[in-house]
Amino acid sequence: MKHELWKITASKIVFEQEPWLRVISEDVELPDGRIVKDYLRLETPDFVMIVPVNTKDEIGLICSYKHGVRQIDIQPPAGYMDEGENPLATAKRELLEETGSVSEHWQSLGSYVIAGNRGAGMAHFFLATECIQVANPDSGDLEVQEVLWIPLVQVRQNWEEGSYAQLSTSAILGLAFARLQVGQ
Amino acid sequence: MKHELWKITASKIVFEQEPWLRVISEDVELPDGRIVKDYLRLETPDFVMIVPVNTKDEIGLICSYKHGVRQIDIQPPAGYMDEGENPLATAKRELLEETGSVSEHWQSLGSYVIAGNRGAGMAHFFLATECIQVANPDSGDLEVQEVLWIPLVQVRQNWEEGSYAQLSTSAILGLAFARLQVGQ
Repeated sequence: MKHELWKITASKIVFEQEPWLRVISEDVELPDGRIVKDYLRLETPDFVMIVPVNTKDEIGLICSYKHGVRQIDIQPPAGYMDEGENPLATAKRELLEETGSVSEHWQSLGSYVIAGNRGAGMAHFFLATECIQVANPDSGDLEVQEVLWIPLVQVRQNWEEGSYAQLSTSAILGLAFARLQVGQ
Repeated sequence: MKHELWKITASKIVFEQEPWLRVISEDVELPDGRIVKDYLRLETPDFVMIVPVNTKDEIGLICSYKHGVRQIDIQPPAGYMDEGENPLATAKRELLEETGSVSEHWQSLGSYVIAGNRGAGMAHFFLATECIQVANPDSGDLEVQEVLWIPLVQVRQNWEEGSYAQLSTSAILGLAFARLQVGQ
Protein backbone atom coordinates (compact mmCIF):
# COMPACT_ATOMS: atom_id res chain seq x y z
CA MET A 1 0.00 0.00 0.00
CA LYS A 2 1.27 3.45 -0.89
CA HIS A 3 1.04 6.10 1.82
CA GLU A 4 1.23 9.66 0.63
CA LEU A 5 1.76 12.80 2.65
CA TRP A 6 -0.95 15.42 2.99
CA LYS A 7 -0.32 18.70 1.18
CA ILE A 8 -0.80 21.94 3.09
CA THR A 9 -2.48 24.42 0.74
CA ALA A 10 -3.07 27.24 3.24
CA SER A 11 -1.96 28.01 6.78
CA LYS A 12 -2.77 30.80 9.22
CA ILE A 13 -2.18 31.48 12.90
CA VAL A 14 -5.55 31.69 14.66
CA PHE A 15 -4.32 32.07 18.25
CA GLU A 16 -0.95 32.87 19.74
CA GLN A 17 0.36 33.48 23.24
CA GLU A 18 4.15 33.49 23.25
CA PRO A 19 6.04 31.43 24.32
CA TRP A 20 3.42 28.86 25.30
CA LEU A 21 1.01 28.23 22.49
CA ARG A 22 0.37 28.85 18.81
CA VAL A 23 -2.77 27.44 17.16
CA ILE A 24 -2.47 27.11 13.39
CA SER A 25 -5.37 26.44 11.06
CA GLU A 26 -4.36 24.60 7.91
CA ASP A 27 -6.18 23.65 4.73
CA VAL A 28 -4.86 20.30 3.58
CA GLU A 29 -5.24 18.28 0.40
CA LEU A 30 -5.55 14.52 0.96
CA PRO A 31 -3.94 12.00 -1.45
CA ASP A 32 -7.37 11.35 -3.03
CA GLY A 33 -7.76 15.04 -3.85
CA ARG A 34 -10.25 15.90 -1.09
CA ILE A 35 -9.68 19.24 0.65
CA VAL A 36 -10.00 19.47 4.44
CA LYS A 37 -10.35 23.02 5.68
CA ASP A 38 -9.30 24.36 9.09
CA TYR A 39 -7.37 21.30 10.32
CA LEU A 40 -5.80 22.52 13.55
CA ARG A 41 -2.16 22.27 14.53
CA LEU A 42 -0.84 23.10 18.01
CA GLU A 43 2.65 24.40 18.62
CA THR A 44 3.82 24.19 22.23
CA PRO A 45 7.40 24.16 23.57
CA ASP A 46 9.28 20.86 23.58
CA PHE A 47 9.86 19.46 27.03
CA VAL A 48 12.22 16.95 28.60
CA MET A 49 11.45 14.38 31.27
CA ILE A 50 14.02 12.43 33.26
CA VAL A 51 13.86 9.18 35.22
CA PRO A 52 16.62 9.60 37.83
CA VAL A 53 17.81 6.49 39.65
CA ASN A 54 20.21 6.52 42.62
CA THR A 55 22.57 3.78 43.84
CA LYS A 56 19.90 2.53 46.28
CA ASP A 57 17.62 1.54 43.35
CA GLU A 58 15.25 4.39 44.07
CA ILE A 59 13.59 6.66 41.48
CA GLY A 60 13.37 10.39 42.18
CA LEU A 61 9.85 11.69 41.62
CA ILE A 62 8.24 15.09 42.13
CA CYS A 63 5.01 15.50 44.07
CA SER A 64 3.15 18.73 43.34
CA TYR A 65 -0.15 20.23 42.32
CA LYS A 66 -0.53 20.04 38.52
CA HIS A 67 -2.99 22.48 37.06
CA GLY A 68 -3.62 20.39 33.91
CA VAL A 69 -4.55 17.43 36.12
CA ARG A 70 -6.42 19.63 38.61
CA GLN A 71 -4.97 17.61 41.49
CA ILE A 72 -1.80 16.66 43.36
CA ASP A 73 0.21 14.29 41.18
CA ILE A 74 3.54 12.49 41.20
CA GLN A 75 5.76 12.59 38.12
CA PRO A 76 9.42 12.43 37.10
CA PRO A 77 11.39 15.70 36.94
CA ALA A 78 10.54 17.57 33.74
CA GLY A 79 10.67 20.99 32.18
CA TYR A 80 10.46 23.06 29.03
CA MET A 81 13.53 23.61 26.89
CA ASP A 82 14.91 27.12 27.01
CA GLU A 83 15.54 28.95 23.73
CA GLY A 84 18.62 27.46 22.06
CA GLU A 85 19.02 24.71 24.67
CA ASN A 86 19.41 21.09 23.55
CA PRO A 87 17.38 18.29 25.18
CA LEU A 88 20.25 16.75 27.19
CA ALA A 89 21.32 20.13 28.56
CA THR A 90 17.73 20.82 29.60
CA ALA A 91 17.53 17.40 31.25
CA LYS A 92 20.70 18.02 33.29
CA ARG A 93 19.49 21.49 34.33
CA GLU A 94 16.02 20.29 35.31
CA LEU A 95 17.38 17.30 37.27
CA LEU A 96 19.61 19.62 39.29
CA GLU A 97 16.93 22.29 39.80
CA GLU A 98 14.11 19.92 40.73
CA THR A 99 15.96 17.27 42.74
CA GLY A 100 19.35 18.84 43.57
CA SER A 101 20.96 15.82 41.91
CA VAL A 102 23.52 15.18 39.18
CA SER A 103 24.48 12.11 37.18
CA GLU A 104 27.37 11.17 34.92
CA HIS A 105 25.37 8.37 33.28
CA TRP A 106 22.75 9.57 30.81
CA GLN A 107 20.81 7.58 28.21
CA SER A 108 18.18 8.76 25.76
CA LEU A 109 14.83 6.96 25.95
CA GLY A 110 13.69 8.55 22.70
CA SER A 111 11.75 11.62 21.53
CA TYR A 112 8.02 11.51 20.88
CA VAL A 113 5.40 13.69 19.18
CA ILE A 114 2.89 14.70 21.86
CA ALA A 115 -0.25 14.61 19.68
CA GLY A 116 -0.49 12.43 16.57
CA ASN A 117 -3.12 14.60 14.88
CA ARG A 118 -2.28 18.08 16.20
CA GLY A 119 1.50 18.02 16.74
CA ALA A 120 2.01 20.03 19.95
CA GLY A 121 5.79 19.67 20.22
CA MET A 122 8.08 16.88 21.31
CA ALA A 123 8.73 15.07 24.59
CA HIS A 124 12.40 14.12 25.00
CA PHE A 125 12.97 11.29 27.51
CA PHE A 126 16.14 10.47 29.45
CA LEU A 127 17.31 7.94 32.00
CA ALA A 128 19.96 9.14 34.50
CA THR A 129 21.53 6.45 36.68
CA GLU A 130 23.85 6.62 39.73
CA CYS A 131 22.36 10.00 40.64
CA ILE A 132 24.00 11.85 43.54
CA GLN A 133 22.40 14.68 45.48
CA VAL A 134 24.68 17.72 45.56
CA ALA A 135 22.30 20.56 46.44
CA ASN A 136 18.86 21.37 47.74
CA PRO A 137 16.08 21.37 45.14
CA ASP A 138 15.16 24.83 43.86
CA SER A 139 12.95 24.45 40.82
CA GLY A 140 11.90 28.05 40.27
CA ASP A 141 8.58 26.63 39.05
CA LEU A 142 5.17 27.95 40.06
CA GLU A 143 4.34 24.69 41.84
CA VAL A 144 5.39 23.84 45.40
CA GLN A 145 7.41 20.66 44.82
CA GLU A 146 8.42 17.80 47.07
CA VAL A 147 11.07 15.27 45.99
CA LEU A 148 10.33 11.63 46.79
CA TRP A 149 12.89 8.84 46.28
CA ILE A 150 10.80 5.70 45.93
CA PRO A 151 12.03 2.09 45.44
CA LEU A 152 11.99 1.03 41.79
CA VAL A 153 9.74 -1.95 42.44
CA GLN A 154 7.19 0.28 44.17
CA VAL A 155 7.18 2.78 41.29
CA ARG A 156 6.74 -0.09 38.85
CA GLN A 157 3.77 -1.43 40.78
CA ASN A 158 2.13 2.03 40.92
CA TRP A 159 2.75 2.46 37.18
CA GLU A 160 1.21 -0.93 36.31
CA GLU A 161 -1.87 0.02 38.34
CA GLY A 162 -2.26 3.27 36.37
CA SER A 163 -1.67 5.41 39.49
CA TYR A 164 0.34 8.14 37.77
CA ALA A 165 -2.09 10.57 36.18
CA GLN A 166 -0.06 11.96 33.27
CA LEU A 167 0.45 10.35 29.86
CA SER A 168 4.13 11.34 29.70
CA THR A 169 4.84 9.83 33.15
CA SER A 170 3.31 6.54 32.08
CA ALA A 171 5.26 6.53 28.81
CA ILE A 172 8.71 7.29 30.25
CA LEU A 173 8.42 4.88 33.18
CA GLY A 174 7.66 1.93 30.89
CA LEU A 175 10.68 2.72 28.75
CA ALA A 176 12.90 3.18 31.83
CA PHE A 177 11.84 -0.15 33.38
CA ALA A 178 12.62 -1.94 30.09
CA ARG A 179 16.06 -0.29 29.88
CA LEU A 180 16.78 -1.06 33.55
CA GLN A 181 15.32 -4.58 33.13
CA VAL A 182 13.12 -4.09 36.19
CA GLY A 183 10.40 -6.71 36.53
CA GLN A 184 12.01 -8.95 33.92
CA MET B 1 4.66 19.01 53.06
CA LYS B 2 1.24 20.46 52.40
CA HIS B 3 0.19 20.72 48.77
CA GLU B 4 -2.61 23.12 48.05
CA LEU B 5 -4.68 23.46 44.92
CA TRP B 6 -4.50 26.55 42.76
CA LYS B 7 -7.55 28.79 42.82
CA ILE B 8 -9.03 29.93 39.49
CA THR B 9 -10.06 33.57 39.89
CA ALA B 10 -11.04 34.27 36.26
CA SER B 11 -11.57 32.19 33.15
CA LYS B 12 -12.36 33.04 29.55
CA ILE B 13 -12.44 31.19 26.23
CA VAL B 14 -9.84 32.75 23.90
CA PHE B 15 -10.18 30.34 20.97
CA GLU B 16 -12.76 27.75 20.05
CA GLN B 17 -13.33 25.45 17.09
CA GLU B 18 -15.98 22.86 17.90
CA PRO B 19 -15.65 19.95 18.43
CA TRP B 20 -11.83 19.86 18.28
CA LEU B 21 -10.36 22.55 20.44
CA ARG B 22 -11.14 25.12 23.09
CA VAL B 23 -8.34 27.32 24.51
CA ILE B 24 -9.16 28.79 27.90
CA SER B 25 -7.17 31.56 29.57
CA GLU B 26 -7.32 31.43 33.36
CA ASP B 27 -6.09 33.73 36.09
CA VAL B 28 -4.97 31.58 39.00
CA GLU B 29 -4.02 32.32 42.60
CA LEU B 30 -1.12 30.21 43.89
CA PRO B 31 -1.06 28.94 47.52
CA ASP B 32 1.44 31.72 48.43
CA GLY B 33 -0.98 34.38 47.20
CA ARG B 34 0.77 35.18 43.92
CA ILE B 35 -1.51 35.73 40.94
CA VAL B 36 -0.63 34.22 37.57
CA LYS B 37 -2.54 35.76 34.69
CA ASP B 38 -3.45 34.08 31.39
CA TYR B 39 -2.45 30.51 32.28
CA LEU B 40 -3.66 28.50 29.30
CA ARG B 41 -5.82 25.40 29.39
CA LEU B 42 -6.55 23.24 26.35
CA GLU B 43 -9.73 21.26 25.95
CA THR B 44 -9.63 18.57 23.26
CA PRO B 45 -11.81 15.46 22.93
CA ASP B 46 -10.88 12.38 24.95
CA PHE B 47 -9.57 9.52 22.86
CA VAL B 48 -9.15 5.79 23.29
CA MET B 49 -6.30 3.59 22.14
CA ILE B 50 -6.33 -0.19 22.00
CA VAL B 51 -3.57 -2.81 21.91
CA PRO B 52 -5.21 -5.75 20.11
CA VAL B 53 -3.52 -9.15 20.38
CA ASN B 54 -4.57 -12.22 18.38
CA THR B 55 -4.08 -15.91 19.21
CA LYS B 56 -0.83 -15.97 17.20
CA ASP B 57 0.80 -13.51 19.65
CA GLU B 58 0.67 -10.70 17.14
CA ILE B 59 -0.29 -7.08 17.83
CA GLY B 60 -2.53 -5.25 15.35
CA LEU B 61 -1.09 -1.87 14.42
CA ILE B 62 -2.16 0.81 11.95
CA CYS B 63 0.24 2.27 9.41
CA SER B 64 -0.83 5.65 8.03
CA TYR B 65 0.23 9.22 7.44
CA LYS B 66 -0.21 11.25 10.65
CA HIS B 67 -0.48 14.99 10.13
CA GLY B 68 0.71 15.81 13.67
CA VAL B 69 3.86 13.77 13.08
CA ARG B 70 4.20 14.99 9.48
CA GLN B 71 5.19 11.50 8.37
CA ILE B 72 4.03 7.90 7.94
CA ASP B 73 3.78 6.33 11.40
CA ILE B 74 2.70 3.07 12.99
CA GLN B 75 0.38 3.13 16.01
CA PRO B 76 -2.28 1.04 17.75
CA PRO B 77 -5.91 1.55 16.72
CA ALA B 78 -7.30 4.73 18.28
CA GLY B 79 -10.04 7.26 17.96
CA TYR B 80 -12.00 10.07 19.54
CA MET B 81 -14.98 9.34 21.74
CA ASP B 82 -18.32 10.24 20.21
CA GLU B 83 -20.72 12.43 22.20
CA GLY B 84 -22.23 10.34 25.02
CA GLU B 85 -20.07 7.29 24.27
CA ASN B 86 -18.11 5.61 27.08
CA PRO B 87 -14.43 4.68 26.64
CA LEU B 88 -14.95 0.91 26.33
CA ALA B 89 -17.71 1.32 23.75
CA THR B 90 -15.44 3.63 21.75
CA ALA B 91 -12.62 1.10 22.00
CA LYS B 92 -14.80 -1.74 20.67
CA ARG B 93 -16.09 0.45 17.82
CA GLU B 94 -12.63 1.68 16.82
CA LEU B 95 -11.12 -1.82 16.94
CA LEU B 96 -13.81 -3.09 14.59
CA GLU B 97 -13.66 -0.08 12.26
CA GLU B 98 -9.87 0.11 12.02
CA THR B 99 -8.90 -3.58 12.04
CA GLY B 100 -12.17 -5.44 11.33
CA SER B 101 -11.59 -7.36 14.56
CA VAL B 102 -13.54 -8.11 17.73
CA SER B 103 -12.55 -9.43 21.14
CA GLU B 104 -14.42 -10.80 24.14
CA HIS B 105 -11.47 -10.13 26.46
CA TRP B 106 -11.01 -6.48 27.37
CA GLN B 107 -8.86 -4.95 30.11
CA SER B 108 -8.37 -1.30 31.02
CA LEU B 109 -4.76 -0.09 31.02
CA GLY B 110 -5.75 3.16 32.72
CA SER B 111 -6.76 6.71 31.77
CA TYR B 112 -4.21 9.51 31.57
CA VAL B 113 -4.23 13.31 31.35
CA ILE B 114 -2.59 14.25 28.05
CA ALA B 115 -0.83 17.43 29.24
CA GLY B 116 0.17 17.95 32.88
CA ASN B 117 0.16 21.74 32.66
CA ARG B 118 -2.52 22.40 30.03
CA GLY B 119 -4.99 19.53 30.41
CA ALA B 120 -6.03 18.68 26.84
CA GLY B 121 -8.37 15.79 27.61
CA MET B 122 -7.81 12.16 28.56
CA ALA B 123 -6.32 9.13 26.85
CA HIS B 124 -8.15 5.91 27.76
CA PHE B 125 -6.08 2.76 27.18
CA PHE B 126 -7.30 -0.81 26.64
CA LEU B 127 -5.84 -4.23 25.99
CA ALA B 128 -7.95 -6.62 23.87
CA THR B 129 -6.75 -10.25 23.71
CA GLU B 130 -7.81 -13.23 21.57
CA CYS B 131 -8.87 -10.84 18.79
CA ILE B 132 -10.64 -12.38 15.81
CA GLN B 133 -11.04 -10.73 12.42
CA VAL B 134 -14.69 -10.68 11.36
CA ALA B 135 -14.78 -7.95 8.70
CA ASN B 136 -12.63 -5.81 6.46
CA PRO B 137 -11.27 -2.64 8.05
CA ASP B 138 -13.27 0.50 7.20
CA SER B 139 -12.11 3.30 9.46
CA GLY B 140 -13.96 6.24 7.93
CA ASP B 141 -10.94 8.34 8.93
CA LEU B 142 -9.24 10.89 6.68
CA GLU B 143 -6.04 8.81 6.61
CA VAL B 144 -5.43 5.87 4.26
CA GLN B 145 -4.81 3.07 6.76
CA GLU B 146 -3.06 -0.28 6.50
CA VAL B 147 -3.42 -2.93 9.24
CA LEU B 148 -0.26 -4.78 10.20
CA TRP B 149 -0.26 -7.78 12.56
CA ILE B 150 3.28 -7.88 13.96
CA PRO B 151 4.77 -10.44 16.40
CA LEU B 152 4.73 -9.16 19.99
CA VAL B 153 8.47 -9.57 20.44
CA GLN B 154 9.11 -7.48 17.31
CA VAL B 155 6.78 -4.71 18.50
CA ARG B 156 8.51 -4.75 21.86
CA GLN B 157 11.93 -4.39 20.27
CA ASN B 158 10.75 -1.48 18.08
CA TRP B 159 9.20 0.17 21.15
CA GLU B 160 12.39 -0.17 23.22
CA GLU B 161 14.34 1.43 20.37
CA GLY B 162 11.96 4.43 20.33
CA SER B 163 10.78 3.65 16.78
CA TYR B 164 7.13 4.60 17.33
CA ALA B 165 6.82 8.36 16.93
CA GLN B 166 3.82 9.15 19.14
CA LEU B 167 3.82 9.61 22.92
CA SER B 168 0.54 7.72 23.38
CA THR B 169 1.82 4.72 21.37
CA SER B 170 4.90 4.51 23.55
CA ALA B 171 2.82 4.79 26.74
CA ILE B 172 0.23 2.14 25.90
CA LEU B 173 2.71 -0.41 24.56
CA GLY B 174 4.76 -0.35 27.78
CA LEU B 175 1.63 -0.93 29.85
CA ALA B 176 0.45 -3.71 27.52
CA PHE B 177 3.80 -5.55 27.63
CA ALA B 178 3.75 -5.43 31.44
CA ARG B 179 0.19 -6.77 31.57
CA LEU B 180 1.03 -9.49 29.02
CA GLN B 181 4.33 -10.19 30.78
CA VAL B 182 6.21 -9.93 27.48
CA GLY B 183 9.98 -9.65 27.87
CA GLN B 184 9.81 -10.65 31.52
